[in-house]
Amino acid sequence: DAQYNRNVPFETSPQAIRLYHFYNHWTMRAATYFFIWVNLALALFEEPAVFPLPFLVTSIAEVLCLTAFFGRLVHFAKVTPQKVFWKDTKNICVMVTIVLTLIDLVIYGSLEAVNIRGVRWSRALRPVFLINFPESRQIRRTFRSIRNTLPDILYVFLLFLFSMMIFSLLALKLFGDRDLRTVEGSPYFTNILDIAFELYVLVTTANSPDVMMPAYELNWWYSLYFITYIIINTYIFMSVFLAVIYNNYRKHLKNEIHTLAYLRHHKMTEAFNILKVKVGTEFVVKEARWRRLLKVVAPDVSSSHLELLLRISDEGQKGHVDKVNFLRLADLLNIRVVAINIKKHPLETWMPRVYQSSTSLLVQKMVQHRIFVWVYDVIILINAIFIALDEKDSLISYAEWLFLSLYIIEILLKLYTYEPSAYFGRKQFWNWFDTLIIIAALLATVANTTIQARKYNSQQVLDIVLILRILRLLRVIVSIQRFRVIVTTLINIGPTMLTFGGLVLVVYYAFAIIGMEVFHGKIHFLDPGSGSPDALVCGNPALKDSAFAQGRYCKNNFNDLASSLILLTELTVVNQWHILADGFALVTHQAAKLYFIGFHVVVVILIVNIFIAFILEAFFVAYSLEKSEVETAIEKKIQELG
Amino acid sequence: DAQYNRNVPFETSPQAIRLYHFYNHWTMRAATYFFIWVNLALALFEEPAVFPLPFLVTSIAEVLCLTAFFGRLVHFAKVTPQKVFWKDTKNICVMVTIVLTLIDLVIYGSLEAVNIRGVRWSRALRPVFLINFPESRQIRRTFRSIRNTLPDILYVFLLFLFSMMIFSLLALKLFGDRDLRTVEGSPYFTNILDIAFELYVLVTTANSPDVMMPAYELNWWYSLYFITYIIINTYIFMSVFLAVIYNNYRKHLKNEIHTLAYLRHHKMTEAFNILKVKVGTEFVVKEARWRRLLKVVAPDVSSSHLELLLRISDEGQKGHVDKVNFLRLADLLNIRVVAINIKKHPLETWMPRVYQSSTSLLVQKMVQHRIFVWVYDVIILINAIFIALDEKDSLISYAEWLFLSLYIIEILLKLYTYEPSAYFGRKQFWNWFDTLIIIAALLATVANTTIQARKYNSQQVLDIVLILRILRLLRVIVSIQRFRVIVTTLINIGPTMLTFGGLVLVVYYAFAIIGMEVFHGKIHFLDPGSGSPDALVCGNPALKDSAFAQGRYCKNNFNDLASSLILLTELTVVNQWHILADGFALVTHQAAKLYFIGFHVVVVILIVNIFIAFILEAFFVAYSLEKSEVETAIEKKIQELG
Repeated sequence: DAQYNRNVPFETSPQAIRLYHFYNHWTMRAATYFFIWVNLALALFEEPAVFPLPFLVTSIAEVLCLTAFFGRLVHFAKVTPQKVFWKDTKNICVMVTIVLTLIDLVIYGSLEAVNIRGVRWSRALRPVFLINFPESRQIRRTFRSIRNTLPDILYVFLLFLFSMMIFSLLALKLFGDRDLRTVEGSPYFTNILDIAFELYVLVTTANSPDVMMPAYELNWWYSLYFITYIIINTYIFMSVFLAVIYNNYRKHLKNEIHTLAYLRHHKMTEAFNILKVKVGTEFVVKEARWRRLLKVVAPDVSSSHLELLLRISDEGQKGHVDKVNFLRLADLLNIRVVAINIKKHPLETWMPRVYQSSTSLLVQKMVQHRIFVWVYDVIILINAIFIALDEKDSLISYAEWLFLSLYIIEILLKLYTYEPSAYFGRKQFWNWFDTLIIIAALLATVANTTIQARKYNSQQVLDIVLILRILRLLRVIVSIQRFRVIVTTLINIGPTMLTFGGLVLVVYYAFAIIGMEVFHGKIHFLDPGSGSPDALVCGNPALKDSAFAQGRYCKNNFNDLASSLILLTELTVVNQWHILADGFALVTHQAAKLYFIGFHVVVVILIVNIFIAFILEAFFVAYSLEKSEVETAIEKKIQELG
Repeated sequence: DAQYNRNVPFETSPQAIRLYHFYNHWTMRAATYFFIWVNLALALFEEPAVFPLPFLVTSIAEVLCLTAFFGRLVHFAKVTPQKVFWKDTKNICVMVTIVLTLIDLVIYGSLEAVNIRGVRWSRALRPVFLINFPESRQIRRTFRSIRNTLPDILYVFLLFLFSMMIFSLLALKLFGDRDLRTVEGSPYFTNILDIAFELYVLVTTANSPDVMMPAYELNWWYSLYFITYIIINTYIFMSVFLAVIYNNYRKHLKNEIHTLAYLRHHKMTEAFNILKVKVGTEFVVKEARWRRLLKVVAPDVSSSHLELLLRISDEGQKGHVDKVNFLRLADLLNIRVVAINIKKHPLETWMPRVYQSSTSLLVQKMVQHRIFVWVYDVIILINAIFIALDEKDSLISYAEWLFLSLYIIEILLKLYTYEPSAYFGRKQFWNWFDTLIIIAALLATVANTTIQARKYNSQQVLDIVLILRILRLLRVIVSIQRFRVIVTTLINIGPTMLTFGGLVLVVYYAFAIIGMEVFHGKIHFLDPGSGSPDALVCGNPALKDSAFAQGRYCKNNFNDLASSLILLTELTVVNQWHILADGFALVTHQAAKLYFIGFHVVVVILIVNIFIAFILEAFFVAYSLEKSEVETAIEKKIQELG
């Protein structure tokens, strides 16, 4: 029968095909994702928890998840040939992780039973499931790209470390004997390890210019040392990191795409070989069989679309499709054909007399005019000013309703002028956006009035309502063409951005788990209003007089998953990360700084640069996007058909 | 006669050619550069000065410079056709600047005579001379590229400001009424202008996470507001800026190169038309005339090189050069042909018996062996440890001499093994590097001993000696192949980096002059050791309790050119720039922050991104460098000739 596959090698018996279809069914995929997320979310409930649950509950949930993963794996093993299955590292990865997690659970459980607190180290492995199931191909690709970049990065990194070492030595010799003091009064640049740490922090710019001030005060001449250091290590080396990562990213992206294209070509050829019939001198696929194939492969294609595809594939109208055109089928199916129907406005069909009257035509002309858009831009501006003013005044809260009704009138007028189903067409993203914002604002304002009337006081609901009401100002974007172009580009890279989010999540999760195991409970946030002396040192006397406590950073701790993730985000932003690192080093050990340096290297040097490379590439593609060959073929056909 | 020009249109009379040659003579160029630098350096001597000189001296020097510029311009006008001269914006720019400067000088001088302090605003225009003389084509090209990027940047910037405004409004509504306090105890997020400034600072990451802490302490939920803000504005928008700038940089670079290539082609065709003779059906240039041309154009080409060029250009050995090959001449001349002579070692010619003896051969084999390199790497490592240790110990200062002699022995051994003139060949950059480092270290150590013996005590000389001695550790780079590749790439982009330095200098100079006019004398550095209470507030009571004074930033002021440039560098590094901006706003007016925001937009968003784009491009070119067509032609010919 008709076979048409995309990526996984599989056996060709009918039973295998049924299993394969079942494997790819959306419920099964959804279930897998569900269990992956449950597994990751367990960290919220395990100690140290946001919402504590007993160990028994979380461990049962975890075992359940593991069973689900194992079941999925067994299912996959049945679908794939044995040899292929065992060759695939991702299957082995998942299995090893399942076994390790079980061992860890048993050990921790038995230690718990005799009241010894163990370390749940296997929790850091949980993202492995997210990476290694076939559903998250994109994340895996990014990881592969990182792994391939590592050797190149490594040498640049070593050279960078070497340069840092030379500069540390210089600093020790230049400033070590001068008995200088920092602003806090501690000795300045006397210990080679401290100097190396300070200079690493200077690369991230987080302690500039403070680190330079004592030397600069002594003689302006010394500032040249720091400026040289910053130019070489911060500007040049960090740019070289970006260059190396970006270059590798492009190279591997190209390779991966080539491989994928080759694989697809190979499979399409196989399918063609099964379906082919000899006609004259060449092998072809008959039209009837081709139609049947398409019905199975893409059941939701409309019949007019199918005709179009057939006409394109069967150029000579010979009643069959040759090999070249058959291989192009996969590309053709990926192009979305928009059926444009020029319909009459429904009002015009219902009451043509009224709709075509001179007043009605005047209104339509007015709405289509540029000034209409400008007037509404001015209205939005005035609205913004009103929002900025205090809303306690009742006049302003009435104005709120006025603006809302103006917006609703605008949309109604537009619907009156343009055909509604065209206005809300699939590609009319901006019309949807506009309407949704207004509806949200309307709901928010209604909710707000209800809340005020009932004296209901949930802070979060009030905040969300407030945000929704302000977001209506986003409508300005809709009316400025250049803004729309930029936002459209950003939205187009959204899906890949999600991949990126997955990657970040994996790394953050692993670091958060490690951080929670090492640092949890060391630093507490106590309400400073309570007047307790402990509140000023975050509940830990080791922090007395530290910059960490003085900056009131007590909330930045590893006491639960949410705090850890927020703290890691702060570390990604880089600024003040050395103060955070110092704080945690004070309450544990100086070696704790290695955790923070490691996080900086992995997240800021590697992942943020990949993110930048990715945005750069996305924008270049958007700038240079031209119609692909296949698309041109379709357009040609459409023009031919009229 | 033979004419061969590169870029400037000129008339073709013999007198004009003599003038043109004189105009392009290196002494004239050097004089122009000298006067440009004198003019720029005047800021060091004018009030507020590093080295004060009376106004009369500096103004006479300035008038001298202006005369020189004017002379150069007149000279240029004689060389170029009138029409072309007046069409060129750069000539007009220079003239306008000269006139403006003169007017400013006269006004300032007369005000000075009646003891009124004027503003020397024309000083900010001085970099115009650096940009607009034909010698600094590269800088002008970069400026043109920036100007072309501006429209694209502008829309992204407006969208960015719009997003900032929306977030400011949100912040005002979310946090304004909650009576929160910052760490310093001032009200938190109550004024829309303050919020906008804080959020702009947050884009630069300089006040993260402090700006978030008060809200985060209230509820962890609010941290999501800041995280969203950072993701959208810091990460996405800043990457989009880089993408837009990089994209434009590439596009305009390509355009400029195309234009240049077209211009050159056009001129070579003109030259060909003057020199051509009809032979058979085609126009050609005779061999004798071609030789004479080359003698005039490139007098320092060796005769063997000339023969090679002729053989390549005259492929059929027909005694003349056709048009295609003639047009290629300019490219051919740009390729450096390295004559490789495999010479015998001089020692071998002097005393062959000794040099070829078995001991001598053993030494040579040893030096060429890998282990020899490794042994010296270990020695450098041990040396680094010795340097890190205290050098007061006499044992260690003797070790110093030991290491130095070991290095010298290494170089002598290498010279013994390899042919000296090959070892110090033109392309043997690393051997030069190695030898220079050792010689520098040797000189430094000798100087050090002399100084110690004589109790001489100039701090700067001592520091330089110290730096030279430590820099010898750079030898490690020489022995690791991968490091050499990275460093070579960096050195290759050196010349263009200098262009970039010119660009930065122009912008810094203009900002420094403005800063000096506006802020000079507002903040003073007083030695904190003096115990004066003014020292703690940088001599200005307005700074009492400010973060500026607490951070001991008094040295960061605009009181002379050197301090201003250092301060601007600190602002480029970004960190703590808001504290510096706040400090200067306190001693003058809140509007002073606009100066700092302007600097950030121009330097960090525009210029640093161009720098990154430039490094990225340089690395991509280095990665994908393939031999050009012309080089291949030469190689083919060389292979043919044997």
